Amino acid sequence: MSRTLTAQLRTQIDREVTLEGWVHRRRRLSTVTFLVLRDRSGLGQVVATDPRTRTVIDSLGEETVVRVSGTVAANAAAPGGAELTDPTIELLSDPAETPALELWRPRLNVSLPTLLDHAPIAWRHPRQRAVWQVAAASLRGYRAALDQRGFTEIATPKLVGSATESGADVFVVDYFGRPAYLAQSPQFYKQVMVGVFERVYEVGPVFRAEPHDTVRHLAEYVSLDAELGYIADHRDVVAVLRDSIAAMVDAIRETPSLAELAGARLPVVPAEFPIIHFSNALQMIGADPDEPDLAPEHERAIGQWGLDTFGSEFVVVEGYPAAKRPFYTHPQPTDPRWTNSFDLLFRGLELVTGGQRLHRYRDYEAALAARGEPSAPYQGYLQAFRHGMPPHGGFAIGLERWVARLIEADNVRRTTLFPRDLHRLSP
Amino acid sequence: MSRTLTAQLRTQIDREVTLEGWVHRRRRLSTVTFLVLRDRSGLGQVVATDPRTRTVIDSLGEETVVRVSGTVAANAAAPGGAELTDPTIELLSDPAETPALELWRPRLNVSLPTLLDHAPIAWRHPRQRAVWQVAAASLRGYRAALDQRGFTEIATPKLVGSATESGADVFVVDYFGRPAYLAQSPQFYKQVMVGVFERVYEVGPVFRAEPHDTVRHLAEYVSLDAELGYIADHRDVVAVLRDSIAAMVDAIRETPSLAELAGARLPVVPAEFPIIHFSNALQMIGADPDEPDLAPEHERAIGQWGLDTFGSEFVVVEGYPAAKRPFYTHPQPTDPRWTNSFDLLFRGLELVTGGQRLHRYRDYEAALAARGEPSAPYQGYLQAFRHGMPPHGGFAIGLERWVARLIEADNVRRTTLFPRDLHRLSP
Repeated sequence: MSRTLTAQLRTQIDREVTLEGWVHRRRRLSTVTFLVLRDRSGLGQVVATDPRTRTVIDSLGEETVVRVSGTVAANAAAPGGAELTDPTIELLSDPAETPALELWRPRLNVSLPTLLDHAPIAWRHPRQRAVWQVAAASLRGYRAALDQRGFTEIATPKLVGSATESGADVFVVDYFGRPAYLAQSPQFYKQVMVGVFERVYEVGPVFRAEPHDTVRHLAEYVSLDAELGYIADHRDVVAVLRDSIAAMVDAIRETPSLAELAGARLPVVPAEFPIIHFSNALQMIGADPDEPDLAPEHERAIGQWGLDTFGSEFVVVEGYPAAKRPFYTHPQPTDPRWTNSFDLLFRGLELVTGGQRLHRYRDYEAALAARGEPSAPYQGYLQAFRHGMPPHGGFAIGLERWVARLIEADNVRRTTLFPRDLHRLSP
Repeated sequence: MSRTLTAQLRTQIDREVTLEGWVHRRRRLSTVTFLVLRDRSGLGQVVATDPRTRTVIDSLGEETVVRVSGTVAANAAAPGGAELTDPTIELLSDPAETPALELWRPRLNVSLPTLLDHAPIAWRHPRQRAVWQVAAASLRGYRAALDQRGFTEIATPKLVGSATESGADVFVVDYFGRPAYLAQSPQFYKQVMVGVFERVYEVGPVFRAEPHDTVRHLAEYVSLDAELGYIADHRDVVAVLRDSIAAMVDAIRETPSLAELAGARLPVVPAEFPIIHFSNALQMIGADPDEPDLAPEHERAIGQWGLDTFGSEFVVVEGYPAAKRPFYTHPQPTDPRWTNSFDLLFRGLELVTGGQRLHRYRDYEAALAARGEPSAPYQGYLQAFRHGMPPHGGFAIGLERWVARLIEADNVRRTTLFPRDLHRLSP
C-alpha cells in the first residue's frame, strides 16, 4: 500500500492507510497506548488497544523508524482531528537508541553548546525544523522575486587568487602548493556579470575568518547577493531589495502555520522602505556629526524612529561616509563627503548592506591610487570597467541573520544548520 | 522616459522609446549608419541618417554604454522586425576601450586560454551568454521539480573538520591556526538531514584538489545534490533523478530559442530511464566479468546500446561492485558482490552518480571496521544513524558537465563562469 503522510490523515477517515516515520513519543495509559509518529509533514497519532501491539510499542525507543498500517478514525482530540487505529507495526531499520535530547517536548530546553553538538538530532525537533523551513522558504521567495524581474542566477568561484576585497579576515587555502583564498563575498564577480546579464543574483556560502566570538558573526554563512545595472542611483537598488524581502515574507506565509510553529514574527513590508540620510540620522539621535558609522544604540534608536514615524520595522540609512565603505562605493554626486551606499536596518539591527558602485574605469584607478593600492591584483575585475560598464549597484542579505531576526533569536548560530566559528568545526 | 528593452521594440512600432545598452557593433554605409545595441534581452538595430549623429556613432567604441532615444519603425530586415530611427544618443559612462575579442562575430574563434583569460568580457558574447542561461534555467528546473515533490532546500558547511569522505584530493584550509578541509560534497550532511526533512536538496560549490589536467575535471564546481528517505531501494532514487532532469530540460525550453542560441541539443527524456545491471553491461560489451569499473569506451558502447534499443540518450547502470564505491553504499540484498548504486550515462558519458546508502548504525560500524578506519572522525555523522534513519539514497549532478553535454563542448571549462584548475585561479 502506498504511503500516506500524517498531514493527510484527516482526508482518509475510515480508510486503511500506511504511515511511515519516526517514533516521536509513546504514552502508555491503563487500557490504551498512544504512539505519536513524526514524518516530514508533521505529527500523527496512533492508538493501540491490542495487548500484543502495546507490547511492541513498549519495545520501540523514540526515533525508531517504523511503518504503521491501520484504519483512520476521526477524533477531535487528536492532532489534525484524526488518528490511526488497530495498528500493525513494522520496523524499517534497527531499533534506535533514544536520544538524550527529548525531541517530544514542546521546546528543547538545553544550552546552546549542547544544541550545536547534537545538531544532527536537534534539527529533528518540530520547532527547530520549522526554523530552517523559514530559511528555505525565504530562499525560494528571494529567487522567485528576482527571476520575475529579469535577473540571471550566477555561480561564481569561492576559491580566489588574491585577498583583495578587504585584506583582513580571509581564510588561506593550500592550492596545489600556492596560496588561494576563500571568497568573502561574490562582490567583484557579480559586478563583472552585470556587464553580461545586467541583473544577476547568487545564493551561496561566503567565508570570513572572523576572530571575534560574537552572537552575530559566523566563519561561513549563506549570502543572498544581487547586483543590477542601468540604475539611476542606489534608490533603484533599494526598490529591488524591498521587493525581494516582500517576496521572502510571502513565501514563508505560503506554508500554513509555519511562522507560528517556528516562533517567527513576520513583519509587514511597507510599499516603500522609509529612507533617512546618514547625516540626518546622526542629527536626529543627537550623535556627533563627525561619527563615521552607526553604533548599535544608534541603530536601535533609528529603528524606533521608523516604527514610531512610519509604522515600519524597516529603515534604510543612506549616504554613509566614504571612509567606512569599500573603494568601489559610488560617491554621492551632490556632496562627495557622503556615498550612494545604504544599510537596511530591520528591528533596529543592520540586516543588509548595499549601494551604488563606481562604473568608470578611471574612477577605479583613482580610487585604488587614493588608497595607495596597486591595481595589478585587480586586473581580472578591472577588465569589465575598461570595456564598458553601466551605472550599477547591489546588496547582500545574510540568510542566518534574517531568520534570527524573524524568530528573535539571541544568537545567529540558532538559525544555521551546522555553524562554523572560531571554536566550532563540527558536526 | 522609462526604458524599453530591445526585445520589446516590435511591440512599439511608431512610438518614441528609449533603449539602454552596449554598442555591440557599428556599420557605416554611404548614407546611413547602423548601430547594433545589446541589452539583457538581445540585440536591437538603430539607424542613423543625420550626419551629426553618424559622427557621434563613429566616436563610440564597441562596448560603450549608451542611452538611445528615437522612433520605432517596422523593418522586416532588422532583428525582431523593428528598428529605432532618428536616434539621439547619450553616454551612460565613459567611452569604452574596444575589446580585443570581437563580440559581434557569430562565434568567438579564439583559443580556450584566451577565452578564459578574458572571461569577464567573453561571457558578453550572445552565444556565450546563452550557454550560461542554459545552466541558470537548469538550476531553476531542478529546484522546481524537487520543491514540488516535498523536498527541503538545505545549506551545509563547506568548511569541514576532517577529510573523511575520500581522504585524497582535498584542499586544506588554515582555520584559525588548525587544519580544516573544503567539502568534496555535502554527502554526510545531506544524509543527516534526511533524518530531519526526509527529502532534501542542495545546490552549491564542491571542491576537489584534482591533480590531473583533464577536459572533464575542475577544482571547484556546482553540485546539484538530492537525498531522500523512505525508499524501497535505489530505483526510487532513479525515478526522482529522471523527473529532475526532465524538469531541467523543460525549464530550458521555457525561454524561446535559448537552446538554439546556445547551440544546445536538448534530449528527449524518456518516461523511465532504461536500466542495465553492471554485470549484464560487462557481458553485453564483451568485457572481463571481473572489471571493477566501466572504462570510457564501455560507457560509449552502453550509451549506443541505450540509443539503439530504447531510443534513449540516457542509460542507468546499476549494481556497481562495492570495491569502487564509498563505504556508505548499500549492498545489493540479493547478492552482496554488487551494490544498490548506479551511474547515469548521458550520451555515453557518466553524468550522475547515486545510489542507496546504508541506514543501520551497525552496518556503518561494520563498513568502517572492514576498511580499517576508526569511527571517531565520523561521530557527528554517525549520530544520525544511532538515533534512527530510514532507508535512503540520493544522487549528485555536476552542473558544468550537464551543460557541456548539452552543447557538446569539448571541455567543461567552456560551461563554467570562472573555472578553477591546477593552473588557473583567476580571473
